Amino acid sequence: MVTFNTKDFEKMDKRYRAKFINSLSGAKSANLIGTKSRGGQTNLSIVSSAVHIGSDPALMAIIFRPATVPRHTFENILDTKIFSLNHVSEEFFEKAHQTSARYPREVSEFDAVGLTEEYVEDYFCPFVKESALKILMELKEVHHLQINKTEMIIGEVKWVSAPRECLREDGYIDINTIGTMSVTGLDSYHPLKKGVRLSYAKPNQEVKTLDRDGLT
Amino acid sequence: MVTFNTKDFEKMDKRYRAKFINSLSGAKSANLIGTKSRGGQTNLSIVSSAVHIGSDPALMAIIFRPATVPRHTFENILDTKIFSLNHVSEEFFEKAHQTSARYPREVSEFDAVGLTEEYVEDYFCPFVKESALKILMELKEVHHLQINKTEMIIGEVKWVSAPRECLREDGYIDINTIGTMSVTGLDSYHPLKKGVRLSYAKPNQEVKTLDRDGLT
Repeated sequence: MVTFNTKDFEKMDKRYRAKFINSLSGAKSANLIGTKSRGGQTNLSIVSSAVHIGSDPALMAIIFRPATVPRHTFENILDTKIFSLNHVSEEFFEKAHQTSARYPREVSEFDAVGLTEEYVEDYFCPFVKESALKILMELKEVHHLQINKTEMIIGEVKWVSAPRECLREDGYIDINTIGTMSVTGLDSYHPLKKGVRLSYAKPNQEVKTLDRDGLT
Repeated sequence: MVTFNTKDFEKMDKRYRAKFINSLSGAKSANLIGTKSRGGQTNLSIVSSAVHIGSDPALMAIIFRPATVPRHTFENILDTKIFSLNHVSEEFFEKAHQTSARYPREVSEFDAVGLTEEYVEDYFCPFVKESALKILMELKEVHHLQINKTEMIIGEVKWVSAPRECLREDGYIDINTIGTMSVTGLDSYHPLKKGVRLSYAKPNQEVKTLDRDGLT
């Protein structure tokens, strides 16, 4: 067992520390954010910070790095109030990762990495055609986190598209059946193994294993 | 392909919607939060909302449900400013899930579910002995998210303990080697498959696959 304290963190090289600290939270989600500027320029950006905030209304938060780096996606969201979230799967995770390169503003990451823009139901922002689970988000709140100058946006889920075969009777979506990946650290992509669903926990009652349809 | 819009969300039964919306963000982290009240009562609570906020300083955020439900862990954190995060692994994920049952305030979930309190280096809060990766967190900020009355806390990483075999040369921690689980939806627990590490992305340069030690 190795232990590290704040003095050890301070002594770490910047890149080493970024990889180390990014590993601590555990498994992360892998999503591509699709946006379009008012001028029609599309952008695509991978994020591992999308997190569930609530079900009613349906809300998610996403963290963006400080304004010292170019953030075309963040600016498009502020400006147009609308963006897509697209699950990253095993078939195209290398292309998804490549969207993190610092392309100039006039380059669309869709073209640069070889993913396909898709437009549905008159929504302004592009979706990723290759993605099995697509979500339309509407910007609701922006929180500037003073502590380290990151920005947290909260968006509301307005529309979802998913393959029928991943939908379970009780509302659960089995994202493992559509190959959704998990990220660890800054750069490691993991398929998930088959999940084990557990019953709702109550005091003085043993947790039961449910089958994959959520039925005991 | 099946699509859902806000009207469909509104028509969903409350439990169905909770399972559906909780599935959308993708893979989530699985951590146990260990706290102790000033009076000495310990608490243990599973969370899937721990998210990386920054590396320097080392920060994570965690979302707590509205104050309408008992939140002994949240109250302990506000009061004592210190808590532990403990990765949930395949060996004890059923016990970890059972901490989500609504135990009375005077019951320690450590005892109720059969996990072991561990104290290190004079830190006030308990860690989970069974957990391979343990983190000491200090409360830095509390954000009340007015939009749905959830609370977001931001904590600073002050101390980390991890097995030597999961530490890579470049700072990456291979949490897959210690069995850290991912959560999908509300109740599904997934081991990760072996990860594929990709090189830092640059424009006009193809992404390379790195070996698991992060060395090309």
